Amino acid sequence: MAASTAETRDSPRARLLESGYASDDDEDGGRDAREARDERGGAVSRRKTFAARTHSLYLGLGLGGLELERADEEEECESLDFHDVDSHWARRSRGRFPRGWAKWIVAAVIGVIVGLIAFAIDVAVSALFRGRRALFELCRDRVHLALAVFAHIALGVVTAAFAGLLTVYMSPSAKGSGVHYVMAVLNGVHVPKAFDGLTLVVKSIGTIFAVGSGLMIGPEGPLVHIGAAIAMQFTHGGSFGMAELFRSDEDRSDFISAGVSAGLGAAFGAPIGGVLFSLEEASSFWRESTTQRALFSSTIATFVLSVCRAVMSGSAVKEHTAMKQPGLIALGEFDATYYLVEMPFFGALAGVCGVISGLITKLIVVLSEFAPIRNSHRFAQVVVVTAATLGAFYLAAAAGSCVKTSPDETTKWSEASIRLWCKPGEYADVGSILLANKQDVISWVLGAPANAHAAHALLVAFFVTLFGMVSAANLFVPAGLFMPTILWGGLLGRFTAILCNHHAYALVGSAAALAGTFRATVSVVIILLEGVGKSAFLFPLLTAVACSNFTRRMFGASLYVEQLRQAKIPFLHTKPPKSLDDTLCAADICSRDIVYFRTIEKVGVIEDALANTRHNGFPVCSSKSKRVLGVVLRKQLLVLLSRRAFVENLVHAPRAEDGLADESVLGGRTPDDVVSLRRRCDLGVFMQLAPPTTRADASARAAWETFTRLSLRHLPVVADDDRGAVIGMITRIDLIAAAARRPSTHDGDDDDDDDEDGV
Amino acid sequence: MAASTAETRDSPRARLLESGYASDDDEDGGRDAREARDERGGAVSRRKTFAARTHSLYLGLGLGGLELERADEEEECESLDFHDVDSHWARRSRGRFPRGWAKWIVAAVIGVIVGLIAFAIDVAVSALFRGRRALFELCRDRVHLALAVFAHIALGVVTAAFAGLLTVYMSPSAKGSGVHYVMAVLNGVHVPKAFDGLTLVVKSIGTIFAVGSGLMIGPEGPLVHIGAAIAMQFTHGGSFGMAELFRSDEDRSDFISAGVSAGLGAAFGAPIGGVLFSLEEASSFWRESTTQRALFSSTIATFVLSVCRAVMSGSAVKEHTAMKQPGLIALGEFDATYYLVEMPFFGALAGVCGVISGLITKLIVVLSEFAPIRNSHRFAQVVVVTAATLGAFYLAAAAGSCVKTSPDETTKWSEASIRLWCKPGEYADVGSILLANKQDVISWVLGAPANAHAAHALLVAFFVTLFGMVSAANLFVPAGLFMPTILWGGLLGRFTAILCNHHAYALVGSAAALAGTFRATVSVVIILLEGVGKSAFLFPLLTAVACSNFTRRMFGASLYVEQLRQAKIPFLHTKPPKSLDDTLCAADICSRDIVYFRTIEKVGVIEDALANTRHNGFPVCSSKSKRVLGVVLRKQLLVLLSRRAFVENLVHAPRAEDGLADESVLGGRTPDDVVSLRRRCDLGVFMQLAPPTTRADASARAAWETFTRLSLRHLPVVADDDRGAVIGMITRIDLIAAAARRPSTHDGDDDDDDDEDGV
Repeated sequence: MAASTAETRDSPRARLLESGYASDDDEDGGRDAREARDERGGAVSRRKTFAARTHSLYLGLGLGGLELERADEEEECESLDFHDVDSHWARRSRGRFPRGWAKWIVAAVIGVIVGLIAFAIDVAVSALFRGRRALFELCRDRVHLALAVFAHIALGVVTAAFAGLLTVYMSPSAKGSGVHYVMAVLNGVHVPKAFDGLTLVVKSIGTIFAVGSGLMIGPEGPLVHIGAAIAMQFTHGGSFGMAELFRSDEDRSDFISAGVSAGLGAAFGAPIGGVLFSLEEASSFWRESTTQRALFSSTIATFVLSVCRAVMSGSAVKEHTAMKQPGLIALGEFDATYYLVEMPFFGALAGVCGVISGLITKLIVVLSEFAPIRNSHRFAQVVVVTAATLGAFYLAAAAGSCVKTSPDETTKWSEASIRLWCKPGEYADVGSILLANKQDVISWVLGAPANAHAAHALLVAFFVTLFGMVSAANLFVPAGLFMPTILWGGLLGRFTAILCNHHAYALVGSAAALAGTFRATVSVVIILLEGVGKSAFLFPLLTAVACSNFTRRMFGASLYVEQLRQAKIPFLHTKPPKSLDDTLCAADICSRDIVYFRTIEKVGVIEDALANTRHNGFPVCSSKSKRVLGVVLRKQLLVLLSRRAFVENLVHAPRAEDGLADESVLGGRTPDDVVSLRRRCDLGVFMQLAPPTTRADASARAAWETFTRLSLRHLPVVADDDRGAVIGMITRIDLIAAAARRPSTHDGDDDDDDDEDGV
Repeated sequence: MAASTAETRDSPRARLLESGYASDDDEDGGRDAREARDERGGAVSRRKTFAARTHSLYLGLGLGGLELERADEEEECESLDFHDVDSHWARRSRGRFPRGWAKWIVAAVIGVIVGLIAFAIDVAVSALFRGRRALFELCRDRVHLALAVFAHIALGVVTAAFAGLLTVYMSPSAKGSGVHYVMAVLNGVHVPKAFDGLTLVVKSIGTIFAVGSGLMIGPEGPLVHIGAAIAMQFTHGGSFGMAELFRSDEDRSDFISAGVSAGLGAAFGAPIGGVLFSLEEASSFWRESTTQRALFSSTIATFVLSVCRAVMSGSAVKEHTAMKQPGLIALGEFDATYYLVEMPFFGALAGVCGVISGLITKLIVVLSEFAPIRNSHRFAQVVVVTAATLGAFYLAAAAGSCVKTSPDETTKWSEASIRLWCKPGEYADVGSILLANKQDVISWVLGAPANAHAAHALLVAFFVTLFGMVSAANLFVPAGLFMPTILWGGLLGRFTAILCNHHAYALVGSAAALAGTFRATVSVVIILLEGVGKSAFLFPLLTAVACSNFTRRMFGASLYVEQLRQAKIPFLHTKPPKSLDDTLCAADICSRDIVYFRTIEKVGVIEDALANTRHNGFPVCSSKSKRVLGVVLRKQLLVLLSRRAFVENLVHAPRAEDGLADESVLGGRTPDDVVSLRRRCDLGVFMQLAPPTTRADASARAAWETFTRLSLRHLPVVADDDRGAVIGMITRIDLIAAAARRPSTHDGDDDDDDDEDGV
């Protein structure tokens, strides 16, 4: 893994630079002469603007443009810097933006946009389902049933193909749910292109057509990705030009948390559940301000969605109220009564759901290995699988029976219970579950009276739902698996409870399926609880989630973690994994092939280091003892070089303009000194001062915790002798490689594992 | 503050030890001779048991006994160590307990106990209220109204006096809500006696009698304290003897989080709200396992409480269901409809509530300055204030009027609407609010129909409730202020809405009052939402909390923060406060008068340091360059000395017993070497290895973040020169002193402050 991911290092120059430092001058001199000519022309004007431009560039790290260019070339992940660079330069020039309010406003705007997009998706998907149903009924009534079925399937295939076309040829990052990208970015890994404007557009439109095609997928996961992508537009590198205000990666993670919460909150009508999901699945530590803003965003998204729906249905005018249908999925209203005796049954059902979700995840992961590589094959896969899936749905529907609609239920479930080939006043029980709009089907399955579905219909629908989910999971279309998971869990629960006429089992099944598939715990409970609106259900739901997690644990990691692994994204959990041996020290796991700079470094050395290594951060050391004085980032160096921020330029720069180059910056050097410092960079001014370091004899687990808790990007390792010279560097990659080194040593005490991930 | 709290330092020995190290031998030699005689007798047997005892003592930090002894003497706060000591010794001898499951079981047990105690308090308080009411009615009907009033007041005073007696003379820590102690311990400050068994018992019994006396207080805050105290019994130093299993302070904070969540969850029937409260108010960082266990505990507590109530009311037998009345406070069922137009009114009401709660908090804090010191005065205060308060309630009741009971409401609110001197079939409107059981009153005020109370009755009750709350807040009885806060907020909201006949205003008022008084945000919303069970109410509640926080901000810190300040507890927020200046470096804020040890240190030097300083941690440095090699704690040194863990004893100790003293521990020294090492301690074996340090030129804000995010206790500051010698030590106290140094510099950008604490 280490070789294929971001911060790989080639070692050649390290020792060369150490030893050959003094003899570097020749090569340097040659270039000096050449570049001196180039310089003469533009030097004066360049010097004038230099101060101002560098000023704004070095406040934080806002180098969106450069970073993105590089990302385009290499298509690799890069770690994020969650901290502002605390350099001498930044200390002197840092302004105090009144950003508190601005952040709240952006959070609100994110909420509004997510709410509107959720509403648009909702309306468009419903329209697609209704349109296809109208076409079916038209063909059935006017021509022939076979044509109706064919037209229905064909329209579905065309719709899915359009989504596939967009995804395959315009933005492959829009594939699937995208939740793992969100997890990555909140964990501190920047995945290029996963959150740009194109992906946002493709994902939004693609979700509508993919979900509207009738595949066994839902818009929930994509909405999470969409929320994050919207949030990203407000950070540096984004489209809305707020880079000046929100340049730091910390703001970025703040907004993304808000976007994620808004997306999930709107999807389920569960603002609190959305916040907890973003905390539980992705974020590494709890920050109160982040949480409050995320709740703010998700509440607004939910609110906007509700208002839009109320306006559309006309109830807003009549009742002046807005909050009747909070989410895309309405779980319906239940009787909160359950019998204490039922708890073991709940637990057993949840355990079974855990096993099934474990198997399903494994199957999806295994099948994804066979995913086609070429774009045309990917597109063909979308077409073929959609056709096959819809065909299978019709076959299953044919295996079902026609049930008489009871009059009082007719209007309530009119969207979900569809007629197909049944007589007027009847509906096809299996066909309705598989072919109707999923969000209506879910509230129908959870809330319908006991006689709505026969036992065999539930069983058939359950298996076909599983099939549909597995077949759709790896397609190149935007696709969320929350909805099918809730559906199969609910179907299994309902099947279990067919004897005792109880809705609780369906809900327990859904909770267990969700918890098993996504290995989320608290957030799943809250999401469903908010959907149902009865806190009395907490205890059975908690039992379900715990039991499901218990059996689920036998089948390895969650779907998202598997997806992260497949995408080769170095994801760090806050706690060091058990596989990280107690006996390992920081010195054992760090990368030794470091390239370091002096505080006043020759431009040639910097250029060489940038050209010959792919390190993203370099320690700046004292020349005598090699003690770490600071860390300078690759992107800082690139700007320094491109702006020609050499010592001589800085000293000659206009002094009064913004206090940029007065004595204190360069440590009291006069222009006379500068002659001897020509073509050198004063890294001491720009480097991150006093970065956290770890001693070589600190345990690897302690280093891991320091790294994650302080959300670092580079952790220099210093010798444990009296000199304290830098001997290595720990990055994300090193930690993950160390954890993977002995994966099986501690398999025995897996029961201790629930410290991290069980209920 | 620095002088009066834990880790104060007197400086005298620091330089003495540095300079006089070589000439220390004489004094040392004299004592050597004396102690050598003592030693001869018990030396052999002592040496035999030494290994085993030291072994168990040095695994983690479990030194409950010693620590408590010290605490008894000095009655001071002490910081907790959230990390296991990672020493050579610990690395060699650390066992792997299968603690995951044990922790879950303990969490469950905590939940059950908290649930049972909540139930006991509930039953007992109700019985007290009913008994006093029966007495009142008996006297009224048989003798005279005046006697009835007198008997009612007298019984209340006696009850409160009993609670006061217990609190004043047995456990003053049981006073008030105790939430600030919980915040302190979760933040890493150990407050002696606040969580011992005696406090637990006094708090539980005292809460029953204090709340039952009719004072304007509730059992919610005390339940939080009780939950934490129960959790503490399972950690080291606790009563249930699990110290072997859960010795680390990290486990302690885990359990306390669970206990807090269980307490609040049971109090409000809001398990999720309880968890969020413990996260928001107290814990410094989000850990998934803690959260899951806390949710588990609080769910079980809520469940046990519900089951007990169902069994008692007989509904369990009839309906086999348990979750009908989840919490001590039932907020009742509302119509979830509100008009969008009403949002500004909600906001205005909430803003007013914020102002009122700010003033109330200020008043309570100011009055607490005049709290009596002597125990007899404290007790007298309880008696006098209770009598005055109850008298005032009767006066206010007399100002109210009698309202005819509507037949359908009679049974529903029979507990809350009491007759007093009214005719049969009527109730006293003000009197009922002030004199009935508060938990019934709250659901009555929030849920009763519009004509239940006249406007002037609500206004009178509102003012008298405020008076009762302020007068009771500083009494020496266990007293929670959640309930009166909800009550006055609800009364004000109801008064506002008297024209438009709406329950939403009462709820908004309650939320705003809670948010204003306790400055909690997310958790308040969730608690009330869970109580009402309608997520549709989220948006108005969030608005209320935001508006209340906005106006509240003008009035300084929350009640809990003020209480922490008064109790002189050094509480650290995760984020550095704005008052911590950007220009300060770690070197500026650290304590300079450090005493450091060599790895092999003379016993005399250690004894001197322990005797002459009050430092709780000492850096262990290399003798040449003064580089920090480790940190050793005072309590470790105390054990080392008391066990005579000198080099010569360790080398002579039986080698095979548990691999205690083989070569690797002492670095290959033979007994021959030991002659020259007599009466020295090998601190290198026991010290915390490679502790996190900070450079002198790191910014103070960065040091603060390192300190809190890594939950450290001591952060050595090393020079930023080539030698890297230790120049100081940062502890909790230093950070707080630094933040307090320039409190008014940045008052201007208070609007940026909402990053930390606003919605």
